[in-house]
Amino acid sequence: MRIPETIPGYGPVRPFTGAFANLGKLTRAVRTVHAAPSGTDKVLADLDAAIRACDLRDGATLSFHHHLRNGDAVLNLVLEAAARAGLKGLTVAASALFPVHAPLIEHIRSGVVTGLAASTIYGPVARAVSQGALATPVLMYTHGGRARCVESGDLRIDVAFVAAPTADAYGNLCGAVGRAACGPMGYAVTDVQGAERVVAVTDTLVPYPAVPIEIGQDWVDFVVAVDSIGDPAQIVSGTTKATTNPVALSIADTAAKVIAASGLLEEGFSFQTGAGGASLAAAAFLGRIMRERGIQGSFAAGGITAGIVELFDAGLFRALMDVQAFDHAAIDSFRRSEAHQTMSASMYANPHNRGCVVNRLDATILGAAEIDRDFNVNVTTGTDGVILGGSGGHADTAAGSKLTLITTSLVAGAHAKVVERVTTCTTPGESIDVLVTDAGIAVNPLRGDLAERLTAAGLPVTSIEALAARAAELAPAPTRDRGGDGRIVAVVEYRDGTVIDVVRQVEG
Amino acid sequence: MRIPETIPGYGPVRPFTGAFANLGKLTRAVRTVHAAPSGTDKVLADLDAAIRACDLRDGATLSFHHHLRNGDAVLNLVLEAAARAGLKGLTVAASALFPVHAPLIEHIRSGVVTGLAASTIYGPVARAVSQGALATPVLMYTHGGRARCVESGDLRIDVAFVAAPTADAYGNLCGAVGRAACGPMGYAVTDVQGAERVVAVTDTLVPYPAVPIEIGQDWVDFVVAVDSIGDPAQIVSGTTKATTNPVALSIADTAAKVIAASGLLEEGFSFQTGAGGASLAAAAFLGRIMRERGIQGSFAAGGITAGIVELFDAGLFRALMDVQAFDHAAIDSFRRSEAHQTMSASMYANPHNRGCVVNRLDATILGAAEIDRDFNVNVTTGTDGVILGGSGGHADTAAGSKLTLITTSLVAGAHAKVVERVTTCTTPGESIDVLVTDAGIAVNPLRGDLAERLTAAGLPVTSIEALAARAAELAPAPTRDRGGDGRIVAVVEYRDGTVIDVVRQVEG
Repeated sequence: MRIPETIPGYGPVRPFTGAFANLGKLTRAVRTVHAAPSGTDKVLADLDAAIRACDLRDGATLSFHHHLRNGDAVLNLVLEAAARAGLKGLTVAASALFPVHAPLIEHIRSGVVTGLAASTIYGPVARAVSQGALATPVLMYTHGGRARCVESGDLRIDVAFVAAPTADAYGNLCGAVGRAACGPMGYAVTDVQGAERVVAVTDTLVPYPAVPIEIGQDWVDFVVAVDSIGDPAQIVSGTTKATTNPVALSIADTAAKVIAASGLLEEGFSFQTGAGGASLAAAAFLGRIMRERGIQGSFAAGGITAGIVELFDAGLFRALMDVQAFDHAAIDSFRRSEAHQTMSASMYANPHNRGCVVNRLDATILGAAEIDRDFNVNVTTGTDGVILGGSGGHADTAAGSKLTLITTSLVAGAHAKVVERVTTCTTPGESIDVLVTDAGIAVNPLRGDLAERLTAAGLPVTSIEALAARAAELAPAPTRDRGGDGRIVAVVEYRDGTVIDVVRQVEG
Repeated sequence: MRIPETIPGYGPVRPFTGAFANLGKLTRAVRTVHAAPSGTDKVLADLDAAIRACDLRDGATLSFHHHLRNGDAVLNLVLEAAARAGLKGLTVAASALFPVHAPLIEHIRSGVVTGLAASTIYGPVARAVSQGALATPVLMYTHGGRARCVESGDLRIDVAFVAAPTADAYGNLCGAVGRAACGPMGYAVTDVQGAERVVAVTDTLVPYPAVPIEIGQDWVDFVVAVDSIGDPAQIVSGTTKATTNPVALSIADTAAKVIAASGLLEEGFSFQTGAGGASLAAAAFLGRIMRERGIQGSFAAGGITAGIVELFDAGLFRALMDVQAFDHAAIDSFRRSEAHQTMSASMYANPHNRGCVVNRLDATILGAAEIDRDFNVNVTTGTDGVILGGSGGHADTAAGSKLTLITTSLVAGAHAKVVERVTTCTTPGESIDVLVTDAGIAVNPLRGDLAERLTAAGLPVTSIEALAARAAELAPAPTRDRGGDGRIVAVVEYRDGTVIDVVRQVEG
């Protein structure tokens, strides 16, 4: 059995039973709030004071959001303060972790941090986790699943720390302006609504009220001013640049043609793409087709990038739905355009609210580290089993979108990317419709009509089996034995809170 | 005993024990939501279909908000549909009721509606309630108290009906634009977060997404398009025009001078006034003094009116914090200015969140039907004991504001307005600082320093006892006997959920 019934440090496993199996009537947790008396101020001298004011104890859960991406300084500052306070056994529930968060490893070694949860983990922390740095498994949720478990109470946040580009002394927060402006603060919105205590950390404290307000004072307990919440130049990470690789460009062009032939590219079309290079190139190709056809889309969603802003500014989409700006063009667009709309993580992707934005997507283009014969996708680990990312919104958008495309080259270096069985299952195959590679297109057999449409359009449709076989010829490296009984270092939760896979320890 | 320990149809009474007695750590209720599957639409054919889709049963609680004020058509439409469905024993939890809601009386008579809650009740429904139309007492909360009890679960809303000036088919809502644009939708924001089911009712259904979004799709279950949600011309009710009465103008001028002499009128000053004629005139006088002194205020809050927009447009306030536009100038300002900021009812006035906007007020000018020797204020009933309004934000702003002024003439017709004992206590005297009348100013003895300041400024300071005595001379009509044992027709809750008074039945 690949996934045990109970995982030490995680608890009983509710196994994944289908992308749409757990909907219906649900309850959200009881919330604890601390009512602020009139006439008090919320500004505290420093993070040490905030930790005291929140009555933070050993074993508490702290949440963080990743709008400053690899430029974020707040998580490190908070954990330094927690270490100074002598706290132990903390759980860090982040929306994502980046290379900049490498100091977290030392806090794990010293016992300050003993639990970890994140939608994606990049860099040194990912490697440390894979090598067994933590005694208990990391919880890897999706962006929507994170909102779900905060709202349901599956994840109880004692203190949410918000990196606020602008704040006033009573806790009104804004991401659009400030020294480290990040644009929308969608992940933080969900955290502040679920946490018992909320501490805003800012380097731009402005007179009350800090209009426009994105997170209101009624959600914030304390405000701490620091020298810098991070380096805004590092918001743009390496994943958000359009490709110039000819193979990738060819794949992107084909992906755009698949959407064009799908029957969905009509007036009011809606679209999301990841920040991967091929996806961004595909967006540009798609824009060209929309222009040719004279189509205006309803919205593009994301993670918004400069490439998507270009399509929006050209009038190809009426609105942008944005949980997080990926670059400065997106931040600028958010500031100047009313139709560039912020959304919370829950509104974006939570399957357990009254209808999230991914439910309205026509087409989504996503990447893959691996995809297998059942169209299951891995964006969580490399073929070596080492964590290299995580779902983010991958499984969410795939489930919500009418048409989900995976774009990838057939092999990368010595590794096949179309495989017999993914090393780790991040996104279930039932929610993937089309695979576009440099060796042809495979359509999920669940979408029979689509293959006919693509073939009729002259697109190179083949089978997933053929692609997997070709990949195996080109990169015959044996797949890692996944039946091993190595210790489970990460539990991969599907967006509904069921367990879709686990990640096991690798050697250091 | 004026307030019994238990009230039939209401339950055990937690008596009022002080304006700031019940703060600290609190819990918010478990929420029930119904997760929407992907790919479904939320538009239903009519309100009858919505009632079925929500599985509305006898005894359910429906909520409504009053942004369309006396122009609202939605409450009547929903209750007609409920009557058609044969439902009985419903509770209507409104933020406010207006003369336009008179058809509610027939639904009470027929047993469709058996419970009522509202912050203010104007017109025929108020009279019917006072005459005992309902078998159980009406719950009269404050605007902040209503948000509190929705969040705490003291008030459980089965279905919230939102009158949405603009909506899309997946439930994104906006009040700034539409045929019956109302501006901010602050009361509705709180309702949708507390209700099990949310139905948006609109007469302006636009393509998805309806940006800018004020209430997101993740909070809305169903959307119903109707011919008209109401008459936007009736948003402006009679209470929101500045006075031209010379006595009232003189009181207003004095009120502005009191604020000017209080020591609070400095750079960053914040201000709220009710929509009463004298309050609005006082705002204009205050603006003149701010200009003379070269002061820029931080924000004005409300219920925003044209008079406040004028001060904002003149640069006398940096921002407007707005839960509800009172007139078309306010709606227009909200649409065009980013610093004219919407706020939820909870953010506005709920004492049990992490700090509401009223907590940041320097000065507030409010009206009174009566004020007594302990500075208790009645805006709930006339001297005849008949309901004529209710707190709205009266008790909320009085508690939050550093300086709360009551402006009123000493007598009105045959009735004293400064009295021995208010007919009904809406707002406790401890939260009132100054009474300004046409016969002089009385300062609450709790604010000793203030009387000295006002006297030093040459203002006509006297005592509340002297004002009450003078009022009794001018209007010696005997006060109604309030010790009577008439049936309790309304329970007046203070903002923290304690009972501050009751209203008893009058003869029909």
